[in-house]
Amino acid sequence: MNNKLFGNAVVGQSGGPTTAINATLAGVIKGAFEADTIGKIYGMRNGIEGFLEERLSDLSEQFGDASGNLDNEKLDMLVNTPAAALGSCRKKLPDPHTDTAFFENLIDLCRKYNIRYFFYIGGNDSMDTVAKISEYLKTSDYEMYAIGVPKTIDNDLAATDHTPGFGSAAKFIATTMQEIVRDCAVYTVPAVTIVEIMGRDAGWLTASAALANSITGYGPDYVYLPEVPFSLENFFADIRAAMEKKPNIVIAVSEGIRFADGRYVGEGTQSGTEDVFGHKYLGGTGSALEQAVKAEFGCKVRAVELNLPQRCAAHCASLTDLEESLKTGYAAVGAAVAGKNGSMISMERAAGKEYAVKFTAKSLSGIANKVRSVPLDYINESGNNVTEACIDYILPLIQGEPALQYKNGLPVHFVIR
Amino acid sequence: MNNKLFGNAVVGQSGGPTTAINATLAGVIKGAFEADTIGKIYGMRNGIEGFLEERLSDLSEQFGDASGNLDNEKLDMLVNTPAAALGSCRKKLPDPHTDTAFFENLIDLCRKYNIRYFFYIGGNDSMDTVAKISEYLKTSDYEMYAIGVPKTIDNDLAATDHTPGFGSAAKFIATTMQEIVRDCAVYTVPAVTIVEIMGRDAGWLTASAALANSITGYGPDYVYLPEVPFSLENFFADIRAAMEKKPNIVIAVSEGIRFADGRYVGEGTQSGTEDVFGHKYLGGTGSALEQAVKAEFGCKVRAVELNLPQRCAAHCASLTDLEESLKTGYAAVGAAVAGKNGSMISMERAAGKEYAVKFTAKSLSGIANKVRSVPLDYINESGNNVTEACIDYILPLIQGEPALQYKNGLPVHFVIR
Repeated sequence: MNNKLFGNAVVGQSGGPTTAINATLAGVIKGAFEADTIGKIYGMRNGIEGFLEERLSDLSEQFGDASGNLDNEKLDMLVNTPAAALGSCRKKLPDPHTDTAFFENLIDLCRKYNIRYFFYIGGNDSMDTVAKISEYLKTSDYEMYAIGVPKTIDNDLAATDHTPGFGSAAKFIATTMQEIVRDCAVYTVPAVTIVEIMGRDAGWLTASAALANSITGYGPDYVYLPEVPFSLENFFADIRAAMEKKPNIVIAVSEGIRFADGRYVGEGTQSGTEDVFGHKYLGGTGSALEQAVKAEFGCKVRAVELNLPQRCAAHCASLTDLEESLKTGYAAVGAAVAGKNGSMISMERAAGKEYAVKFTAKSLSGIANKVRSVPLDYINESGNNVTEACIDYILPLIQGEPALQYKNGLPVHFVIR
Repeated sequence: MNNKLFGNAVVGQSGGPTTAINATLAGVIKGAFEADTIGKIYGMRNGIEGFLEERLSDLSEQFGDASGNLDNEKLDMLVNTPAAALGSCRKKLPDPHTDTAFFENLIDLCRKYNIRYFFYIGGNDSMDTVAKISEYLKTSDYEMYAIGVPKTIDNDLAATDHTPGFGSAAKFIATTMQEIVRDCAVYTVPAVTIVEIMGRDAGWLTASAALANSITGYGPDYVYLPEVPFSLENFFADIRAAMEKKPNIVIAVSEGIRFADGRYVGEGTQSGTEDVFGHKYLGGTGSALEQAVKAEFGCKVRAVELNLPQRCAAHCASLTDLEESLKTGYAAVGAAVAGKNGSMISMERAAGKEYAVKFTAKSLSGIANKVRSVPLDYINESGNNVTEACIDYILPLIQGEPALQYKNGLPVHFVIR
């Protein structure tokens, strides 16, 4: 590639929104403004679905100032805005080897808007989308570069040290767990509080609940991850042991914990529907355990589901995560301009005591659809807590607090037209 | 009263913890350090229950520096600590006219520790405790001054413009609602999100969910308070009307909404137990409505319970609330030293455009056990939202953000020994 203008770019957001997904979008916008080879940058409304309906936002216009330069104040506001500002979708693309008509249509649209750079921000399913488009591009005479830009609070993408979005979710969960532990400690009557945390297949978010234990000492008594089979018998024994020392027990459980036979603990309480990617819809793990503990111990039991705020609590974001998310988006533009079609931006953690990451583009083939679980040496032998190695891994990712803009007592968010 | 040392003071916290209840405690500690008539200040562990077991903390020692002066850094950390740092209890005192033995025992303990000032921080039930003790003191030869120091996130105490603790809960709810509304707006598929908010009898907290509508425009579509009878038919009609304009509907409901016949909407889904004060234990209002909307509309429906963070999210507190809570505690000491036994500190809002409050001591007789509901002119005619007058009332209470101390990415809290 040389420095000559080559064409326009388009960026989309897909999958579940996160606190940091707009920081990544901001990084792509910043990169596109700076790249000589890129003309306009368009945003897809509601991901690939909206793109196919030609619902596009002119981001060059919305983020440019009067002289067409990047308006950094607007960009900063976007960085601190939760949830996909472009809208999102959940669409599984067909097989590029069999449904060529779908991809021809997609390429025709790119041709129409002279789009030569295609950025898609999302999790595993979105990387699958990029992998298929880049695969098809190899068979097409249309020259375009498709890059996957990772985000997921679940931190379960393969081939990257961690994912943009995870650090902010982890900070919110650790902060809130610490507050809940303080709240639950005020009474002297025996009580068990079960906090249900997101994470269908990987326990990274639930592991974050334990951070306060090592920082301030006010974390949950136990932490149960989906990586280890869940035993109700051991669970009751754990609670009994804790109750010998104090009346108030606080427990963090992943929504995805399963019994040894593979059944989800929360399975009975939900209708068991699946999404278009074949994922089981979970929920009710906390409620199921609440009923079980009530029946066993007869004490006060409360189930708390941290729910949506885990992925949208921008008021409690990690500055490290927001900065890395922005850099990931920026690096994606660099990779596209360098012609790295079909790659994903990955973060590599430097060896040594000082925390540092570098951003590289890795080929998507073999990465998409792989789940990165919490390794077993991050979980203690009893399977009811995490190890120091796990804490050491997560801790750098929750550092720092962004300086938010407030209006009349509420944080101000950016709205894309 | 003159300026001579008269005796010691004791302070307790009772009822449900809040984000600001320790700011009020800090105000009492500050006042006690400054008052010449007060010697030591003790803290009751777990309220009146712990006091009766002589479980006391020496707060003069814990908050004093080497020369016995108040350590402002520790005090500031206490201000930003959620949940009752002294612990709490839920204990209903007997009738002072019939169970004199109980009160004689209490007075004996005060005599033992030379306690002449008695501060009790709490909601309606705690004001009942102070009213009974001060009532009994009138018949005793022991000279002591008992003062009620209000706190409750519910904002339902009579004889005060608002209650310490409410502003922080309102700010957290408004902030989180705004984030949830952004999160829910990302998809194009029809979906209803029902957010259940605390408030058994009064809708103040649920009303706060609407704040973002007037500040940034990203608030819930509807708000249902317990002050207005709930009709499932009207509720469905409201949803249908909103769905004609956009696919994503977000609704805030109070846990305490009831049908016209008096039954709680969430009644069916819980065991209907009562606490020691005879309050019905609620919960499941959101789940009940989730099922109803799913059956009626067949679309995606999600119930979110904001749950415990409403009363303990210190990382999202209102600076105005924390400052007023501290001043309320400080004013309580002033009232006690001035001999105002049996009074409660009340906030009066100044007339005029500029927000200002003054702190006065009001007699507790006739105040305790009265619930202050949201007035009907704060609710719109359709009963599905609040009026501008309501927003104008709440808005000043959520202003400002405290400068929190962080350690390794998490807020630091104070721990009383």
